[in-house]
Amino acid sequence: MKRISKEDLDGWNDDRKRARFINCLSGIKSCFLVGTCNASKQTNLAIFSSIFHLGANPSLMGLIVRPNVSSRHTFENIKMMGFYSLNLLPYQNHQQGHQTSARYSLEQSEFLETGFSEEWTEDGPVPFVKESQVKWLMKYIRTVDIPENGTHMVIGEVQCVYLPDDLIESDGSLTISQTDPALVTGLDCYHQVRKGIRYSYAKPGKDLTKI
Amino acid sequence: MKRISKEDLDGWNDDRKRARFINCLSGIKSCFLVGTCNASKQTNLAIFSSIFHLGANPSLMGLIVRPNVSSRHTFENIKMMGFYSLNLLPYQNHQQGHQTSARYSLEQSEFLETGFSEEWTEDGPVPFVKESQVKWLMKYIRTVDIPENGTHMVIGEVQCVYLPDDLIESDGSLTISQTDPALVTGLDCYHQVRKGIRYSYAKPGKDLTKI
Repeated sequence: MKRISKEDLDGWNDDRKRARFINCLSGIKSCFLVGTCNASKQTNLAIFSSIFHLGANPSLMGLIVRPNVSSRHTFENIKMMGFYSLNLLPYQNHQQGHQTSARYSLEQSEFLETGFSEEWTEDGPVPFVKESQVKWLMKYIRTVDIPENGTHMVIGEVQCVYLPDDLIESDGSLTISQTDPALVTGLDCYHQVRKGIRYSYAKPGKDLTKI
Repeated sequence: MKRISKEDLDGWNDDRKRARFINCLSGIKSCFLVGTCNASKQTNLAIFSSIFHLGANPSLMGLIVRPNVSSRHTFENIKMMGFYSLNLLPYQNHQQGHQTSARYSLEQSEFLETGFSEEWTEDGPVPFVKESQVKWLMKYIRTVDIPENGTHMVIGEVQCVYLPDDLIESDGSLTISQTDPALVTGLDCYHQVRKGIRYSYAKPGKDLTKI
């Protein structure tokens, strides 16, 4: 067992090495493509792995935006239009998804540059990703600034979800793994996930059963 | 393709059905065991899947605490002691991990009740999980309250990391999947992950290469 202290990490000369280490430490995460546009319908698509559940009533999710060029376009578009789309990245499209993280200029759309297809609905003013099987419209609620490092937590509310009919179980659960979604370690290592096993609600002193 | 609107979700009579649906929507996530104790060394262990990267310099992570009994013990301990441990849940221990979500009383330690072993270090005043291969000490920084639903975002800083020596690549990346970590969809469906493939840093107009 190796021990790496805060002092050890601070002593690493290479900032990117520390960034890789800390990014990997937070575990293996789902990949989402965030679809946005500005008022001129100039579209933007960016890969994010820091999207998390904030609550089901109201249905809120958080998204961490870092102070770099690529995610700044996304952030500005979200605030301008008040809406954004979240699209689960299919594993078969993970190379295209990774490519959306390149620093394209504001005039270049990552949809066109990386080969994803725009999909527009009547429900909101932002583009979805046609290749994604599970996607939904988010309404921008507000931003929480994190002054420690200049990042922002964007809070949004789920508006409208599109997904295959056979993914929804009668109790509301979704068998997401059935769509073969891409997962990521750190910023560049992509994984497939195996089918899962469900367990009963845990109670003290009671054995779990498989559902 | 099925379309489920906010109005459809609001119309579901069963709150737990909506909670399952929205919890599953945020994708497949890594499972962490959060180890804490109070000033009397009464220990607590709780499973969380909403832990996310906030930045690498300083090394910050967020953790969403929901306003329920189980996570309230964790939250109170974190604020009391100023430290907590994050322990990646091994897939082989996923049933025990799920069992930590049962509503044990304050006097019961989930370590004892679910069969995990406490591990104490000289680095901090809180227990780690012996069965976890990748674990680290977190220092409590501050809480961001989310008034929309009474949840809290706990911000902490990575202090000291313990992990197998052969997990760290020369560029700082961690091959987390090598430890066979547990992943979860929603609140009750546990998965294994396959080995990943790494890609080069994405640049506009440049083909990706495998690392």
